[in-house]
Amino acid sequence: MASGTTSAMTITLAELARRFGGEIVGDAQQRVGSLAPLDKADSGQLAFLANQKYLPQVETTRAGAVLISPADLEKVAAREGLNFIVTPNPYAYFARVAQAFIDLATPAVKPGVHASASIDPGAKVAASAVIGAHVTVEAGAVIGERVKLDAGVVIGRGVKLGDDVHLYPNVTVYHGCKLGARVIVHAGAVIGADGFGFAPDFMGEGEARTGSWVKIPQVGAVDIADDVEIGANTTIDRGAMADTVIEECVKIDNLVQIGHNCRIGAYTVIAGCAGIAGSTNIGRHCMIGGAVGIAGHVTLADYVIVTAQSGVSKSLTKPGMYTSAFPAVNHADWNKSAAIMRNLDKLRDRIKALEAALDERKGE
Amino acid sequence: MASGTTSAMTITLAELARRFGGEIVGDAQQRVGSLAPLDKADSGQLAFLANQKYLPQVETTRAGAVLISPADLEKVAAREGLNFIVTPNPYAYFARVAQAFIDLATPAVKPGVHASASIDPGAKVAASAVIGAHVTVEAGAVIGERVKLDAGVVIGRGVKLGDDVHLYPNVTVYHGCKLGARVIVHAGAVIGADGFGFAPDFMGEGEARTGSWVKIPQVGAVDIADDVEIGANTTIDRGAMADTVIEECVKIDNLVQIGHNCRIGAYTVIAGCAGIAGSTNIGRHCMIGGAVGIAGHVTLADYVIVTAQSGVSKSLTKPGMYTSAFPAVNHADWNKSAAIMRNLDKLRDRIKALEAALDERKGE
Amino acid sequence: MASGTTSAMTITLAELARRFGGEIVGDAQQRVGSLAPLDKADSGQLAFLANQKYLPQVETTRAGAVLISPADLEKVAAREGLNFIVTPNPYAYFARVAQAFIDLATPAVKPGVHASASIDPGAKVAASAVIGAHVTVEAGAVIGERVKLDAGVVIGRGVKLGDDVHLYPNVTVYHGCKLGARVIVHAGAVIGADGFGFAPDFMGEGEARTGSWVKIPQVGAVDIADDVEIGANTTIDRGAMADTVIEECVKIDNLVQIGHNCRIGAYTVIAGCAGIAGSTNIGRHCMIGGAVGIAGHVTLADYVIVTAQSGVSKSLTKPGMYTSAFPAVNHADWNKSAAIMRNLDKLRDRIKALEAALDERKGE
Repeated sequence: MASGTTSAMTITLAELARRFGGEIVGDAQQRVGSLAPLDKADSGQLAFLANQKYLPQVETTRAGAVLISPADLEKVAAREGLNFIVTPNPYAYFARVAQAFIDLATPAVKPGVHASASIDPGAKVAASAVIGAHVTVEAGAVIGERVKLDAGVVIGRGVKLGDDVHLYPNVTVYHGCKLGARVIVHAGAVIGADGFGFAPDFMGEGEARTGSWVKIPQVGAVDIADDVEIGANTTIDRGAMADTVIEECVKIDNLVQIGHNCRIGAYTVIAGCAGIAGSTNIGRHCMIGGAVGIAGHVTLADYVIVTAQSGVSKSLTKPGMYTSAFPAVNHADWNKSAAIMRNLDKLRDRIKALEAALDERKGE
Repeated sequence: MASGTTSAMTITLAELARRFGGEIVGDAQQRVGSLAPLDKADSGQLAFLANQKYLPQVETTRAGAVLISPADLEKVAAREGLNFIVTPNPYAYFARVAQAFIDLATPAVKPGVHASASIDPGAKVAASAVIGAHVTVEAGAVIGERVKLDAGVVIGRGVKLGDDVHLYPNVTVYHGCKLGARVIVHAGAVIGADGFGFAPDFMGEGEARTGSWVKIPQVGAVDIADDVEIGANTTIDRGAMADTVIEECVKIDNLVQIGHNCRIGAYTVIAGCAGIAGSTNIGRHCMIGGAVGIAGHVTLADYVIVTAQSGVSKSLTKPGMYTSAFPAVNHADWNKSAAIMRNLDKLRDRIKALEAALDERKGE
Repeated sequence: MASGTTSAMTITLAELARRFGGEIVGDAQQRVGSLAPLDKADSGQLAFLANQKYLPQVETTRAGAVLISPADLEKVAAREGLNFIVTPNPYAYFARVAQAFIDLATPAVKPGVHASASIDPGAKVAASAVIGAHVTVEAGAVIGERVKLDAGVVIGRGVKLGDDVHLYPNVTVYHGCKLGARVIVHAGAVIGADGFGFAPDFMGEGEARTGSWVKIPQVGAVDIADDVEIGANTTIDRGAMADTVIEECVKIDNLVQIGHNCRIGAYTVIAGCAGIAGSTNIGRHCMIGGAVGIAGHVTLADYVIVTAQSGVSKSLTKPGMYTSAFPAVNHADWNKSAAIMRNLDKLRDRIKALEAALDERKGE
């Protein structure tokens, strides 16, 4: 584990259990100061078992304590002097403890507004907020308690940021958008740019065509609920009339595009490079793989999984896993199959002809 | 409709017809102050009919007036007291009126340069321009009338921006690029970064290979014509020798990549997450779907449509619609078909063998 | 060639050979001042032959000198008064000379920190560095000799930048990342954002599901070796525990996503819009095409080539070219084949039935 996570501070297992729950088996006064994998941990470190594959390492680990599930603890041969915190979800427990150690190791930042920031007098910034260098906050914006705006962030007119929001450097939030409590947005992401909408206003055909595209004003905004995280350089467009909506605890990776008037249901996760066209409605607890494309104006049920690089062109009304991608194979082999694929109807016609010929013979 | 679009101001149908054209059927002195869908509009609002599906709503709408085409007006049963503006393209008319209402409702911004902006003395900025906080304009740049540069925009050496250009926050325009009148670029987009060009300078093979990639200097620029709109975090590379060219009224969505020395023909639209490799020439009035990939050094005729997620590896010399993407289906079903697909040549060989066997029998 | 590359300064072939190598055939005192294609060059310009296709142009060019390989020189009929610089790799030689001409033509920038930049007193910036407007450098950062940080760049706590690094406008480097000498990063790229990692902590199923995603702290960093170039708006995530590693001379295009804990081997090139999921290990000298998707936790051998838009879901242990993309064809034709493709198992079953029927007949 990188040095950034260690700290001089150590904590007893009893104190961990008090803060994060779990039952202690062993010495509750054992102290740990950081986290490490089972095979690398020393007696001052906390390890975790989340995957059966690593069960044998519990027999040999030198960790000060191990996070383990009740079921896995039963599989472990008795170990003199090894301590456990027993919890139903050791991986989530590990994540929470790791965050606590990081918070302790991270230099405290003083609340206040950097001298170079540009805050409109008509904006309202909580005294506990930390506003970085070269930040811009426009009129009517409301910045909640303990919000962190890193260097170069731009907050448009009338934007509302809930408590404990953290916007990393160079994030842009367009006018009128709303972010709930604890929302995290990574560097370069753009919330609330105009949706892609143009009315064709052309006359004539071919070379004689005249006219132009007329921009459809985008007067909705983006409404992001609590506990959402948005990756670097991701873009979420504002709605045309109504808002684009991201529900609570949605997690979106880097370089994802979400079109105007989409609704992304709570707890759904969207991996990097995915693109979702406008007015699409994605259910709760969905998992959208990397580079997936989803057409506009479709609906995905709750609990839909779309595997990486697949394309969704119609609504998926039932939970389950959906796919349309091929794995790469040897280039020459692929080309051979691809050539036949382009003429599958001819292959089918040959089968039909064979069937007819056999049928005819039968009649002989 | 979001509150941002309403305004205290109202306007007579006569005045709308004077500004935007169309013929009034009904009371030319009727006043409207905002827009709304047919089923939600009240007597102070303007609605529009652009889709036959909503024709019955015209019978029941309470709108102050309805934008309608001559053909559709004939289908409407006489409605006492309902007013119409008759226009060949109600949707485009609606877009223009909506923009006008927004302009009225948007707080006026005073021309001038924000105190925190950094303008090189060798740059020329029109007095009517609005230069936001933390903007950087380098030497030799020329900024046209009424240009808006939002917070954090960076304009490189010698860049020329036409009148009424609007660059949203944190846009970067590299040195020497040119943007025509009324160009809109959304937040985080990058115009004129170096194209991806490296000369291999390696000796030997495998583990014994030595040498490196030598950067090919990119000394062209990007030349963007009037009325182009470019989405958030989109990237358009500068040319290697000659310029990358985006012709008039091209509309490009978010997270699109356009390689060096491409030419994108006038009125073409490109949806989000598409990628176009270098030196490719796209015709006029094309429609490139979301996440489409187009290889380098190919040419697309005018009026080509490529559907979402398709890949173009060769020139398309005729107008028409092109596709190479599959829609996602149940994962298990897909895997079954995909396994056969990888061995299509074997399937074909079995058909050949059957054909040969039948032929032989015939001979018996 | 755009005017940006020309300069008043000219140079003798002898001086070029002294600086860049190669053997002169002809007049070593011939002077050239810029570069041009064979068919456009005049007597003050240097041209190059890198492609057999252009061999005939050598017979007619008016260039002051031509860069040529020894093998190609033998194919050229004697040309009175035409001068050559003979070098094994004329294209790489051309690139190096072009860069030299550009450096001469580019206005010199004075070292120093722009008045509007915000440099933490705990950061260390070399006196030869050029720090642009509105740049932010946080505590503990170390900025090497002749580094250029363009306007709006943000450098996090403890970041180390090697000598001659150039970060274009609005690049963000998160805390703790390390960039080697001569690394170039184009505008808007984000180095070191949090990897996409969340532990599921849910109970119950369907509508009754409760709980949430728990963020896995990302405490690794990004370690980028010498001579790497990274494209505009590309994102490279920091590692979860260990670092994400980009080895020397890797070249990455625009809008590429590289997940946490990836390793990209030296000299590998990655084209635009590609996405590589977490913990994937790509060999040396690989070529990853545009919009390629690579799954997490896989390994690619050295010298693997993946063609554009292909998807890699498993490790590729042998060098060679891999593919899984189809080229777009006429939409109606595609749909016909795609419908059969979705039922390939039925096609196969019909073949099986035919084979069985024929076998049976044989037995008759």
